[in-house]
Amino acid sequence: MTGTNKLNKVAIVGGTHGNEFSGIYLLRKWRDTPQVIERESFSVETVFANPKAFEENKRYLDCDMNRQFATDDLNNLDLANYEQSRAKAINAQLGPKGAAKTDFIIDLHNTTSNMGPSLILLQTDAFNRQLGAYVTVKMPSAVVVLEDHIPVHEHSFLSSISEKGVIVEIGPQPQSVIRQDVLDWMEEMTGHILDFVDLHNRDALPELPASYEAYKYHETLKLPENENGERMGMVHHSVQDADFKVLRHGDPIFTLFNGQEICWEGDYEAYPHFINEAAYYDNNLAMSLAKRVIVGVK
Amino acid sequence: MTGTNKLNKVAIVGGTHGNEFSGIYLLRKWRDTPQVIERESFSVETVFANPKAFEENKRYLDCDMNRQFATDDLNNLDLANYEQSRAKAINAQLGPKGAAKTDFIIDLHNTTSNMGPSLILLQTDAFNRQLGAYVTVKMPSAVVVLEDHIPVHEHSFLSSISEKGVIVEIGPQPQSVIRQDVLDWMEEMTGHILDFVDLHNRDALPELPASYEAYKYHETLKLPENENGERMGMVHHSVQDADFKVLRHGDPIFTLFNGQEICWEGDYEAYPHFINEAAYYDNNLAMSLAKRVIVGVK
Repeated sequence: MTGTNKLNKVAIVGGTHGNEFSGIYLLRKWRDTPQVIERESFSVETVFANPKAFEENKRYLDCDMNRQFATDDLNNLDLANYEQSRAKAINAQLGPKGAAKTDFIIDLHNTTSNMGPSLILLQTDAFNRQLGAYVTVKMPSAVVVLEDHIPVHEHSFLSSISEKGVIVEIGPQPQSVIRQDVLDWMEEMTGHILDFVDLHNRDALPELPASYEAYKYHETLKLPENENGERMGMVHHSVQDADFKVLRHGDPIFTLFNGQEICWEGDYEAYPHFINEAAYYDNNLAMSLAKRVIVGVK
Repeated sequence: MTGTNKLNKVAIVGGTHGNEFSGIYLLRKWRDTPQVIERESFSVETVFANPKAFEENKRYLDCDMNRQFATDDLNNLDLANYEQSRAKAINAQLGPKGAAKTDFIIDLHNTTSNMGPSLILLQTDAFNRQLGAYVTVKMPSAVVVLEDHIPVHEHSFLSSISEKGVIVEIGPQPQSVIRQDVLDWMEEMTGHILDFVDLHNRDALPELPASYEAYKYHETLKLPENENGERMGMVHHSVQDADFKVLRHGDPIFTLFNGQEICWEGDYEAYPHFINEAAYYDNNLAMSLAKRVIVGVK
């Protein structure tokens, strides 16, 4: 292991969305018990990304903070609302994006969807492929989602500040609630990720499987709308809570409020996730669809 | 059946809380298909109680509307914020409380708790006892909750405007989400209630069971707090989602963020409900506890 691959500075971010409580309460917990997140081979800092949204018990005040980290937007001084300003401050603290002083960011999120403990990887370099393998070995209930359809630097997520940033996404949890099962999953997955970084740094990774299953983002579906953009229906009861269960051409996917069922017309085996996520109603989004892929680890 | 017992005017209220979507979307649906809620023996009107909170995707703007219907508050002209004003307007429309022109109010609510389809009765006169029996016969998954620990007129709920008002409370549903299963349960329960009123009016009720099981409100528990009133813990994972499952002295009930388990010290068999309801975090409430009772129907 050469020194250039070593990750010296790690940041754990919570409360990027103010009503996703698990990360916020874990940051508080770790403030009192920092040894839980400390490892020998790197330094770790924690960031409470959106404290004002938490105070107001909202996802955000002005706009979704986790879409404010596109490089052009970070450099656009005219974007000055609360989340856009916090994004610039966090970029100054952890970044700057493209030449970040932080080698690795873990951004902690909750979803109202039944996604269980999910690890979202933004690229599939050797480090991230191994990280996914390690986490799924240590935590068999974990699901790996790949959002590597665009390069990391083109993402507008907070975790894209660092080249190797990841998102921990755990549900189902209603907004503004703390569920112990979800909190425990988040703490466990974060611990495995920190262990992995430490083992990576010390060139001490255990034998990993040659490959594993993951879900690669493909497209986002909208809720049925009428010509005025009003919702005409909802997620079909057979799809509700069925995150990462296969959806095939002809399967029911929506129920209109008038009772009519709408079937999915796609031509591939789709794996829905973020199904009926509360925060996506702003844009009338119903779910994301992924394709199942096999990730080679070597 | 004498004419004085007949219920001539019924109101169905949705959106008393702006982020409880099932009632709001059912009102829209029934606007297009009024025959679903019409019955021969009474007139029915619908009321969208808090449209501004729905627009802002919040429970309320200024205060919880479903606590603004105490008689003194309705008569207190100094209480003039948005929900207090809407409460007075709704009381003028459906009431006035104590001498209401509306004979029966059904107020439609959602909870993030795993309460299933619940019917909350505010009194246990013969009408309400029979109503509970009818609904549980027609809908075996339904649960009847009695909040008859104080007289109806002392309640501050919207449905207390009419002497016989009830609350339909369906979950689990995150705030600001539409789940089809929850929507379908709400529509089914509302239909059974309307059928019951119609059968009651026509003196045509079927044979009902002599008694049935219900849960009578007893007390409300707070989340563990430190001396500054900050949350120190959360609902124990074994209690999460276990609404209407018995809780006994010594059972774990909370987990502190430091890992310590707190057990329940009560001296009766308690039936928790509204467990970890998101809206109750404002007041650091953890759950309500009921006692199991048998309701005689005659």
